[in-house]
Amino acid sequence: VKRELGDSLRVEADLVADGHDRLGGVVRFRDDGKEGKKEWTEVPLTVVENDRWRSEFELEAIGPWTFFIEAWVDDFATFRHSLIRRVEAGQDVTIELVIGADLVRDTAGRAEGEEALSLADTADRIGDETTAIPERLKIILDEKLLELAARHADRTRASRSEPLRVQVDRVKARFSTWYEMFPRSCGPAGKHGTFRDAEARLPYVASMGFDVLYLPPIHPIGVSHRKGRNNATSCEEGDPGSCWAVGADEGGHKAIHPSLGNLADFRHFVSAAADVGLEVALDIAFQASPDHPYVREHPEWFRHRPDGSIQYAENPPKKYQDIFPFDFECTRHLELWEELLSVFLFWANEGIRIFRVDNPHTKPLPFWEWCIGRVTSAHPDTIFLAEAFTRPKLMYALAKLGFTQSYTYFSWRNSKEEFTEYLTHLTGTETAEFFRPNFWPNTPDILPENLQFAGRAAFIGRLVLAATLSSSYGIYGPAYELMDNTPRKGAEEYVDNEKYEIKNWKIEEADSISGVISRINRIRKQNRSLQHNRTLVFHETDNPHLLCYSKRDDQDGSSILVVVNLDFDHPQVGSLTMNFRALGIDGERAFQVHDLLSDARFLWHGQKNTVALDPEIIPAHVFRIRHSLRKEQDFEYFL
Amino acid sequence: VKRELGDSLRVEADLVADGHDRLGGVVRFRDDGKEGKKEWTEVPLTVVENDRWRSEFELEAIGPWTFFIEAWVDDFATFRHSLIRRVEAGQDVTIELVIGADLVRDTAGRAEGEEALSLADTADRIGDETTAIPERLKIILDEKLLELAARHADRTRASRSEPLRVQVDRVKARFSTWYEMFPRSCGPAGKHGTFRDAEARLPYVASMGFDVLYLPPIHPIGVSHRKGRNNATSCEEGDPGSCWAVGADEGGHKAIHPSLGNLADFRHFVSAAADVGLEVALDIAFQASPDHPYVREHPEWFRHRPDGSIQYAENPPKKYQDIFPFDFECTRHLELWEELLSVFLFWANEGIRIFRVDNPHTKPLPFWEWCIGRVTSAHPDTIFLAEAFTRPKLMYALAKLGFTQSYTYFSWRNSKEEFTEYLTHLTGTETAEFFRPNFWPNTPDILPENLQFAGRAAFIGRLVLAATLSSSYGIYGPAYELMDNTPRKGAEEYVDNEKYEIKNWKIEEADSISGVISRINRIRKQNRSLQHNRTLVFHETDNPHLLCYSKRDDQDGSSILVVVNLDFDHPQVGSLTMNFRALGIDGERAFQVHDLLSDARFLWHGQKNTVALDPEIIPAHVFRIRHSLRKEQDFEYFL
Repeated sequence: VKRELGDSLRVEADLVADGHDRLGGVVRFRDDGKEGKKEWTEVPLTVVENDRWRSEFELEAIGPWTFFIEAWVDDFATFRHSLIRRVEAGQDVTIELVIGADLVRDTAGRAEGEEALSLADTADRIGDETTAIPERLKIILDEKLLELAARHADRTRASRSEPLRVQVDRVKARFSTWYEMFPRSCGPAGKHGTFRDAEARLPYVASMGFDVLYLPPIHPIGVSHRKGRNNATSCEEGDPGSCWAVGADEGGHKAIHPSLGNLADFRHFVSAAADVGLEVALDIAFQASPDHPYVREHPEWFRHRPDGSIQYAENPPKKYQDIFPFDFECTRHLELWEELLSVFLFWANEGIRIFRVDNPHTKPLPFWEWCIGRVTSAHPDTIFLAEAFTRPKLMYALAKLGFTQSYTYFSWRNSKEEFTEYLTHLTGTETAEFFRPNFWPNTPDILPENLQFAGRAAFIGRLVLAATLSSSYGIYGPAYELMDNTPRKGAEEYVDNEKYEIKNWKIEEADSISGVISRINRIRKQNRSLQHNRTLVFHETDNPHLLCYSKRDDQDGSSILVVVNLDFDHPQVGSLTMNFRALGIDGERAFQVHDLLSDARFLWHGQKNTVALDPEIIPAHVFRIRHSLRKEQDFEYFL
Repeated sequence: VKRELGDSLRVEADLVADGHDRLGGVVRFRDDGKEGKKEWTEVPLTVVENDRWRSEFELEAIGPWTFFIEAWVDDFATFRHSLIRRVEAGQDVTIELVIGADLVRDTAGRAEGEEALSLADTADRIGDETTAIPERLKIILDEKLLELAARHADRTRASRSEPLRVQVDRVKARFSTWYEMFPRSCGPAGKHGTFRDAEARLPYVASMGFDVLYLPPIHPIGVSHRKGRNNATSCEEGDPGSCWAVGADEGGHKAIHPSLGNLADFRHFVSAAADVGLEVALDIAFQASPDHPYVREHPEWFRHRPDGSIQYAENPPKKYQDIFPFDFECTRHLELWEELLSVFLFWANEGIRIFRVDNPHTKPLPFWEWCIGRVTSAHPDTIFLAEAFTRPKLMYALAKLGFTQSYTYFSWRNSKEEFTEYLTHLTGTETAEFFRPNFWPNTPDILPENLQFAGRAAFIGRLVLAATLSSSYGIYGPAYELMDNTPRKGAEEYVDNEKYEIKNWKIEEADSISGVISRINRIRKQNRSLQHNRTLVFHETDNPHLLCYSKRDDQDGSSILVVVNLDFDHPQVGSLTMNFRALGIDGERAFQVHDLLSDARFLWHGQKNTVALDPEIIPAHVFRIRHSLRKEQDFEYFL
């Protein structure tokens, strides 16, 4: 189970005992990262209904927390309950008062200091036969005594659940806005860009409202079997190669490509990024080019073929001769694992706390569990994004063993049914407890069909979907905002892919959608409801092209209602039936919806309203719902 | 998880490994009751979809079984899969054949005898460079080699699940038809009946088609505070007392009430019952009358009040001075527990294998777990019916710890919505895996409102519901078939309750519904679909009084479709929309439905059909669906 700093964890349990005894129960919890971690704190469980109990506690620090349930029979509460029924029936309770005095005396024995003395005194007064029975009943039935006795109930035969874990991450684990950029394409036309060049691009990225700047691998690139433009098996003079072919004479995973600069330049870049609110994320691709120093120094970390050659990466019939995978199961694998761990620790030492991990699903799950555990125990604020485009259960296994976020199938979801089904699964089932989606409309590897030869409406529409369906999303730019839409023939990839060549992006292009992106990211920042996924609700529309959904903020009750015309080529009109309960609308008054994209305002009455979206203008509404015109001032801080 | 003899257990598991490796997996299982139980049998898991695997194994003996999942990476299958892709792409596979020969040689090392020799020879032939490559490929790609290699895959790094348990009971645990009867009311009018008198009643009970004859406690009854007629706090001369006030001078839980006979009479009765197909079930009520020998011999087994008296049973403000509960938590509780266990073992020794346990929810759960475990390890064919009318989770806890069947809330379910919701929960959720319901329209304790002052239609209707919704059901007779419908004023109990007096039932009454009961029980015996609950499906009707449902037999595909008019006072007509898929009807042909209650036959077309039920005639249809008139002969054995 994962949560974020400042959340509280709601815990529920069925407490069952034979008979009609009254029970008591607590959740006991501790922050495992705290010094002297033997201290448990407890909060009482209270009954919800039908033997289901509930409690909640605040998660005030990042790192792993442990909790368990403890429950017991509360003898005094049981006694008190039946005493009340006897009194109501007018029965003689003389002997019951003796029993009750004994119970209170036992309680005194478990209490300490003043409380013990006070309980012992109370017991004596209950048992004092010289006092009138009504007076003694008043003492024993006092609500405060019930509370006190409950706190000192006999727990020697309490039941305890197994210990359970919750991983608490910083808020960015849940709410993050990513921009992927190749620094080498930030230089003057035709030249390999440097970190200094990339620094000049930072204000532009920041102005669009992103908060994570993710760089593809920044290490030296191998020359053996270097790929040419468009993934050609041989390269031409001057081709820079794929930065995922990590390692060359100049160094490996802890080195910086000389053409980008040196470590000092990198530090300067990271610091400049931080100044404009951008946290740098690095790409960790655990594989080596044939020229990686590891290949020379540790041939035993690679698999050898019977002819003595090292096995290059393959997905038969495809061959990747420019990449050697590590043999995670080699005889000296512990040394290999330690070295790979040291790569994370090296960059963590440089202040990097976000890593996008390349293809984690092709490396052993136990390696990741061990490695992430080691990194986060040293640096609990580290975020790992799993670039795992694989079978769902393998993606979930990675999330369970420690990855903070994951790529998803968002790029391949297009219809209303597909979005509804996929998001309901991601946000409304057990999956939501451990799997944090990060939605990417494009990546350097993926130009999905829905963006191929697509226009402005599709680029805006897919961005609105990613940015409002998921509290974390990202784009690969400037390809995205400049609406690069041309695939390599027959492939789901860009033609003239930036992976194999240096691009010269014209970020000042008039028809860039950077302005819309800025607006959407500002809406995300200003509306807490979009910073979570758990309140996502779909609303009915009678037009299959119109997708409508909302998110609501638990704290202030405000809601964002989004309508997207999934047909990016034609205007669509339809009737929308809102789920008022999900929106917290009482339904009796008219209410205003304010389109934060277009700034238009509409006065709506009742659950059914008509929406019309012309993709030529804009393919989506992002409404803020104003619950009552009378209370308009409540929303002022949003403006 | 519970199953019955002859069932197979379907097991599913998600098998997830990193990358694209081929996996192998098995379910390993064993009958824990078998002599020399260290032998595990295994069945292979096969993939269903999306990393979900499935297998099944037969449960050939009663008692507990253990199983677990074992799964591994199959190196040879992984290799073979990529080899095929290389061959298809026309790649050079010379080195792959060397790798393949090595893998087959490793496999030979794990095999034994002839198989080892044959595998080693195969490895040599694959590796033989003097043979042409196509010939070597043919050898290595042989399907039989794949199978053989899979059987001898390297499991040294296999993953194993936790061991899991399945409790296998005899079929009567699932399919049983109970009749509760007081032997003392079987004598001549005004006299205490004996087992000999009760023997005379056996053919009557058997003729109605019951297979379990359940007797309320047969032990001596206390005289102190004996309850009089209609639960009066004091009794009159000659009142027999409640048989749940167990124990008197003549003995306790292992003794027989002298007025019923002696142990020899009991044995004769049990044997006579068996002769007509009735298995005798005893009522075990762990409580003592003040005159029980335990009270004298083991006062330490009871709770004492401060005034020295023994605490009688109470549910404040109600007092049961004729009953002392045991103190299951007394200092010498282990001796008490052993003694109570010996009660079951005593009657088991007399051949009794079905026990109806009185109020188990007011005794500690750990006691039952221990006690039932001990009884079933000596007598695995023992069935325990929990008389637990309590909160659902406590009922489920009893089922999980070992009770075979349980009473339910059936008596208080009346409307279509209530039945649909309750039965969907009982048969279509996880609850169905461990909780076996036993539906009782009445008991000596319960004359529910739906039968108070009710007529023939209600008695027949409630019986049809119990008998067809649940594969186990029972009635308290002859009160039920004679339609005793008069409550004690303001209570949910019979007036002149048989618990406190000897009754003189006129079983020959002309308006007894015993004939209908016979017919319904015969239908249950002849239609396997009614002997399970797991295929229960509700069908839509447009009249809220008409409840329609079906059950289908997995083996022969036959279905029973039941329609009940829940308005027992007025005729109701409605349109029924059948779920054809649940019924296995292909929908293209007309089909005959044969009402097994009235013997009427109807030819139906399509999913929608009209039903009319006049409760004055009969309040229910119990249709057998004939899938195709052409195949009528297939159903002949039912007739």
